[in-house]
Amino acid sequence: MTRNRLEAFSDGVIAIIITIMVLELRPPHEATLEALRPLVPVALSYVLSFVLIGIYWTNHHHLLQTVEHVNGRILWANLHLLFWLSLIPFTTAWMGENNFASAPVAVYGIVLLLASIAYYLLTHTLISTHGHNSKLAQAVGRDFKGKISTAIYVVAVPLALFKSWLAAALYVVVVILWLVPDRRIERTLAR
Amino acid sequence: MTRNRLEAFSDGVIAIIITIMVLELRPPHEATLEALRPLVPVALSYVLSFVLIGIYWTNHHHLLQTVEHVNGRILWANLHLLFWLSLIPFTTAWMGENNFASAPVAVYGIVLLLASIAYYLLTHTLISTHGHNSKLAQAVGRDFKGKISTAIYVVAVPLALFKSWLAAALYVVVVILWLVPDRRIERTLAR
Amino acid sequence: MTRNRLEAFSDGVIAIIITIMVLELRPPHEATLEALRPLVPVALSYVLSFVLIGIYWTNHHHLLQTVEHVNGRILWANLHLLFWLSLIPFTTAWMGENNFASAPVAVYGIVLLLASIAYYLLTHTLISTHGHNSKLAQAVGRDFKGKISTAIYVVAVPLALFKSWLAAALYVVVVILWLVPDRRIERTLAR
Amino acid sequence: MTRNRLEAFSDGVIAIIITIMVLELRPPHEATLEALRPLVPVALSYVLSFVLIGIYWTNHHHLLQTVEHVNGRILWANLHLLFWLSLIPFTTAWMGENNFASAPVAVYGIVLLLASIAYYLLTHTLISTHGHNSKLAQAVGRDFKGKISTAIYVVAVPLALFKSWLAAALYVVVVILWLVPDRRIERTLAR
Repeated sequence: MTRNRLEAFSDGVIAIIITIMVLELRPPHEATLEALRPLVPVALSYVLSFVLIGIYWTNHHHLLQTVEHVNGRILWANLHLLFWLSLIPFTTAWMGENNFASAPVAVYGIVLLLASIAYYLLTHTLISTHGHNSKLAQAVGRDFKGKISTAIYVVAVPLALFKSWLAAALYVVVVILWLVPDRRIERTLAR
Repeated sequence: MTRNRLEAFSDGVIAIIITIMVLELRPPHEATLEALRPLVPVALSYVLSFVLIGIYWTNHHHLLQTVEHVNGRILWANLHLLFWLSLIPFTTAWMGENNFASAPVAVYGIVLLLASIAYYLLTHTLISTHGHNSKLAQAVGRDFKGKISTAIYVVAVPLALFKSWLAAALYVVVVILWLVPDRRIERTLAR
Repeated sequence: MTRNRLEAFSDGVIAIIITIMVLELRPPHEATLEALRPLVPVALSYVLSFVLIGIYWTNHHHLLQTVEHVNGRILWANLHLLFWLSLIPFTTAWMGENNFASAPVAVYGIVLLLASIAYYLLTHTLISTHGHNSKLAQAVGRDFKGKISTAIYVVAVPLALFKSWLAAALYVVVVILWLVPDRRIERTLAR
Repeated sequence: MTRNRLEAFSDGVIAIIITIMVLELRPPHEATLEALRPLVPVALSYVLSFVLIGIYWTNHHHLLQTVEHVNGRILWANLHLLFWLSLIPFTTAWMGENNFASAPVAVYGIVLLLASIAYYLLTHTLISTHGHNSKLAQAVGRDFKGKISTAIYVVAVPLALFKSWLAAALYVVVVILWLVPDRRIERTLAR
């Protein structure tokens, strides 16, 4: 019952975050197709963030499936993750409106880095509650993708100050890495 | 359990999409009835999109009723549909503010076309997971309405560039076609 | 199961409507208490609409408790109600920003009138599905409050054009009338 | 069933409140890190409000866990709490944009004070429905933290008019006081 409410609240927040980003895609005043051209970087940064938040949602969904007990520490580890995700509409808008300039791309990466650390902390709070031999701990395993993504963000943030499009390309690499949802948990559950 | 969370997240996103569209209906500065007149096309495009998203919600609701297993491919086919639906507030606002001019009506139709393709892909991802003899596959059947709607959008988009009000009238035809919710699935379940 | 999703979607839309209204309460630029004074009518119209939407939510909650079957007609009768409720943030903002002037107060009343008719239609769609001897039909009974509210709106709308504050006072009368949640259904269920 | 819908609606409203606050964090026009500096107070007030609303959510979550019956009075006591919480995005934006000036900090505290009174009223409505010997009444106990927080707000509001940063520091004290979720209810349930 408790887990349900944690899932419902997280779903609500993630659904709002993924949807309000589109409010930054403001309709142009002229009614021509050319008027849409300045919106292209805004739309690209929207697509990138939509997919990234979609990845967080599907992974969160898989992660919580194996959760058995919820306590205060878990609630706050989850709110901490939602906090960093809630900043993504801001960084998405700033990056899109400035055509993927250095500072916004770096700040976008910092928020992703902090969200990935928050996800790691949530995972480890869950494992420490459920035990290192729990189904959840086995399902998370070595968390290869999580560690690679964090490493990519650590590289991309300083890189953004010099070659911002290269940093943005690294964010796309993370998206591709994760787009296949986390089979580990599915596999462990299937066994 | 898993299906519930997929439904809950989709309901959340669709509820937000259908509601934030109304934020484009900005209150005029003067307090006269005449001041509402420029809002008429904005309100008409809001009504059209409200009903279209309502149709997606009721059909999605019927479609998921027969779903038994959810996997990563289904989650992403569903997110793909939600992505195109999330662009509807943008195209609705652009079309309404420009009094159903050619370019916005065409772009509105493109987003509807892509949403209808995404719905088709979701249906077929579900069928391929559940088997071609499943209750779900029988319920979807030949998907006559889905094919007709897609065909209408394919015609309406280029037509919008010449006769934008005729294209908008075709979108209303799609609405009328779907307004009766999908009895096929109800009928198959009743048997 | 089906009723749950109808409730969940309605809750989502109503929660968003009741919350986005507050976005019209824009923080003033100066940091003085006097700067809040122009916001008083905006805040008053927010309070009025918050309570009215709260009444719809609690009544909707009681009404759906006795629902046993959901079909396409019920989904659309419910969406029709949500449509009129979704216009309340617009009319609330217009009324508040224009200090309860005639035209906005009249239009506010028209939307409430149409929402009350939509609620009546939803009730009767539910009764016609469940039968006139159903628990739901007995619980709704003669619907005294519903009829009185509709009558008050019919009087208040034209009155607003002459004495707008009197019309607004009539909306407050409706609020007081309903503030006690609908005991009829609770009582019938208790029996 | 009834409690579920009360939780779902509250979760929806709280999720929207906690997320729309971020819309006030508007991306600057320039693409430099220095351009973020004026946003620091806005971001600080966002963090403060995010954590405060998170505290309300976790406590609400614990409180409702022991609820057995829901009636009209409980629905309205809950809506009353949601009303004051819904004003937090407004006061957060005003306080952040004015760099924690006196009037906004005082008004921020008034809304928190009224929310804490509304939470107290909700708790007591629940206890009076469930009985003074109920699990819920035992779990709430003497409500030490609730009384201390209310007292701090009573001191902070007038203080804000003279030393606004000191009042803001008192709000942070309340956050620290509550950050550990309410173990009383967990403990009573565990027994």
